[in-house]
Amino acid sequence: MKENKLPKGFLVSGVYSGVKRKRKDLALFYSEVPCKTAAIFTKNKVKAAPLVLAERQLKKNNLVSAVIVNSGNANCMTGARGMRDAERMAKEVAKALGCAEDAVLVSSTGIIGKFMPMDKIVGSIGHLVKKLSRKALNAAAEGIITTDRFKKIVSREFIAGGEKITITGVAKGAGMIEPDMATMLCYILTDADISRDALKKALSSAAAGSFNAITVDGDMSTNDTVMLLANAEAGNKTIKNNGAAFAAFQKKLNEVSKELAKMVVRDGEGATKFIEVKVLGAKSLKDAHKAANAIAGSMLVKCAVLGGDPNWGRIASSVGSSGVPFDPDKLEIVLDGVTFVKNGVFHPTRKKTDLVFKGNDVLIEVDLARGKKHASVFTCDITKKYIELNAHYTT
Amino acid sequence: MKENKLPKGFLVSGVYSGVKRKRKDLALFYSEVPCKTAAIFTKNKVKAAPLVLAERQLKKNNLVSAVIVNSGNANCMTGARGMRDAERMAKEVAKALGCAEDAVLVSSTGIIGKFMPMDKIVGSIGHLVKKLSRKALNAAAEGIITTDRFKKIVSREFIAGGEKITITGVAKGAGMIEPDMATMLCYILTDADISRDALKKALSSAAAGSFNAITVDGDMSTNDTVMLLANAEAGNKTIKNNGAAFAAFQKKLNEVSKELAKMVVRDGEGATKFIEVKVLGAKSLKDAHKAANAIAGSMLVKCAVLGGDPNWGRIASSVGSSGVPFDPDKLEIVLDGVTFVKNGVFHPTRKKTDLVFKGNDVLIEVDLARGKKHASVFTCDITKKYIELNAHYTT
Repeated sequence: MKENKLPKGFLVSGVYSGVKRKRKDLALFYSEVPCKTAAIFTKNKVKAAPLVLAERQLKKNNLVSAVIVNSGNANCMTGARGMRDAERMAKEVAKALGCAEDAVLVSSTGIIGKFMPMDKIVGSIGHLVKKLSRKALNAAAEGIITTDRFKKIVSREFIAGGEKITITGVAKGAGMIEPDMATMLCYILTDADISRDALKKALSSAAAGSFNAITVDGDMSTNDTVMLLANAEAGNKTIKNNGAAFAAFQKKLNEVSKELAKMVVRDGEGATKFIEVKVLGAKSLKDAHKAANAIAGSMLVKCAVLGGDPNWGRIASSVGSSGVPFDPDKLEIVLDGVTFVKNGVFHPTRKKTDLVFKGNDVLIEVDLARGKKHASVFTCDITKKYIELNAHYTT
Repeated sequence: MKENKLPKGFLVSGVYSGVKRKRKDLALFYSEVPCKTAAIFTKNKVKAAPLVLAERQLKKNNLVSAVIVNSGNANCMTGARGMRDAERMAKEVAKALGCAEDAVLVSSTGIIGKFMPMDKIVGSIGHLVKKLSRKALNAAAEGIITTDRFKKIVSREFIAGGEKITITGVAKGAGMIEPDMATMLCYILTDADISRDALKKALSSAAAGSFNAITVDGDMSTNDTVMLLANAEAGNKTIKNNGAAFAAFQKKLNEVSKELAKMVVRDGEGATKFIEVKVLGAKSLKDAHKAANAIAGSMLVKCAVLGGDPNWGRIASSVGSSGVPFDPDKLEIVLDGVTFVKNGVFHPTRKKTDLVFKGNDVLIEVDLARGKKHASVFTCDITKKYIELNAHYTT
């Protein structure tokens, strides 16, 4: 990843404050010009303090100058003190940057139910601001991760009305050694000049095929956050929510989102295989997604993939219990290109069984023969390592 | 288990036919007098042939003389040939017993997508009938299990109108080394004279607090079956669907069902701990059950229990993502009697942490503070052994 992939007008940094051991645990995303911002937060009823604060801020004032992210402590289930801590983080960053307090959003990930080590964080904000740079994308990407095995940065460029527009995202994946619930954090920065409506529409659409189409273990975090910040520094003509420029923006945003989401899955704890579950022939997109999710969420299917066993019986059973309507007598199951079930009955020619589920990437295709909609969900296998990481840990 | 716990008028047997290696794989439950029968079948859209047949038979003629059960092959996704095989099993048993073909139900559990080895099964039916006895409950209980570590038999007696009534059930648990989807089979026999309505009502009610309140890995089988057969041989006055006699019947049926269901959970593959998740203070029974199910189904919670870690953060998060309405600021979480969360905030007194989740039985209590309904769901922890059993197996 070339450092110069940062969109115009953004500066970022990542430092070590001492919340976590040995790794950078604080990141800052800053735009010299305030950004229009779209965001998606967890649907979990139990929401961490910084998310409650950010939702409030975005409602009041949608122009964002900076986002500070800490890893190591989720600031969740910390009551009134947790809210005060989140507010103070925003305030201290605003002071150091010389911007409005409402223009600074806060994100946290890490352990639930411990008060934030405010002295460490506040004590590091000066350093964090001083480190802001056009060349610190790797440091910022490192500052937001917890147990991830690798940093996640994706960038795309395109031309709109003669101007080059850059979209660059960083994400934190599903590491869960500490009880941080597989929190997914993602910050996407762009220098596009784009209307607020278009920005919101584009993020919602991109998320449907990426962040909302991945599952590692079915658990939804208290801190999940995806933010898209646009500072208009590219100087293009404002992109509205339709037309060719919007389509180009949507396409590139989809690519960035999907690639980051796939990286999150590939980095699933203990995972050895990447699984795409594609459901075709559904009556509605919702049905396709629901059926794909049921298959991707099945422990038995994940175990089968781990074992390299093309166990179509488990796949059929999980579709059957998904609640999605289909005619079992027309079901078709194709694994890594080999047909195992046709018209609801197992296909006797199993010559290629040995070639299926043996690579690092696995494709499960299920045709419900009920309509024309299709959807994919991305997941990973489950291994003993996952159990080990999540069980043999003491608070 | 004393063999004389079999209700009056029933004879049972269990033999080895060769479908499975080394273990009894065929069982027969027979009543000299045809039985009124209530049954619950899987809600999975993909349903095995014998279930389709049994549903059809029970609609046509509710009087059942016998149930034949084979383990080792599920007769599922086997198309028209599978249906003919199931019908033939019923026909051959009827011939050997001298009863109507429609009065013989068939159950199968085992591998999906292979045709039934009909020669082995048909060839053993004579022997199975010959072995029918008042003293073969253990053999029958063994005939229905697959990878279960122990047989599951529960019996209760009570007096109604001066007559002794016996209710005896056997079950097959959630063993899943072979891809048989954790199929749960349960046959409950009673000599009570009870109306068809009352029988149906009692089974539905008993299942809600037992078979429908357990989860091992969230996967629902293509072959799940619970049957309740009543032959009226106790000579009691017919039990109607209300009144004291019905209440007594319901109570004992609940006990038999709940105990069998708990045995199924305790025998969950690789399980080391039995977990009761109790959700209190819900607005409706449905909400309580849904929230309890979300907690019981969380991989992260199961891992935490395995590790002896009272990880209330994971529990709060899974309730939060269950979709059940509650006020996070009033949430209370009590683990093995120790309060960890009060009014939505972690409880700082954690002195007793070392005493929690250390025994074989674990109790998770969550109060939603939203109403007065409560429900329990029973589950087990997840271990590396589970992964091993379900992954390292080749079709």
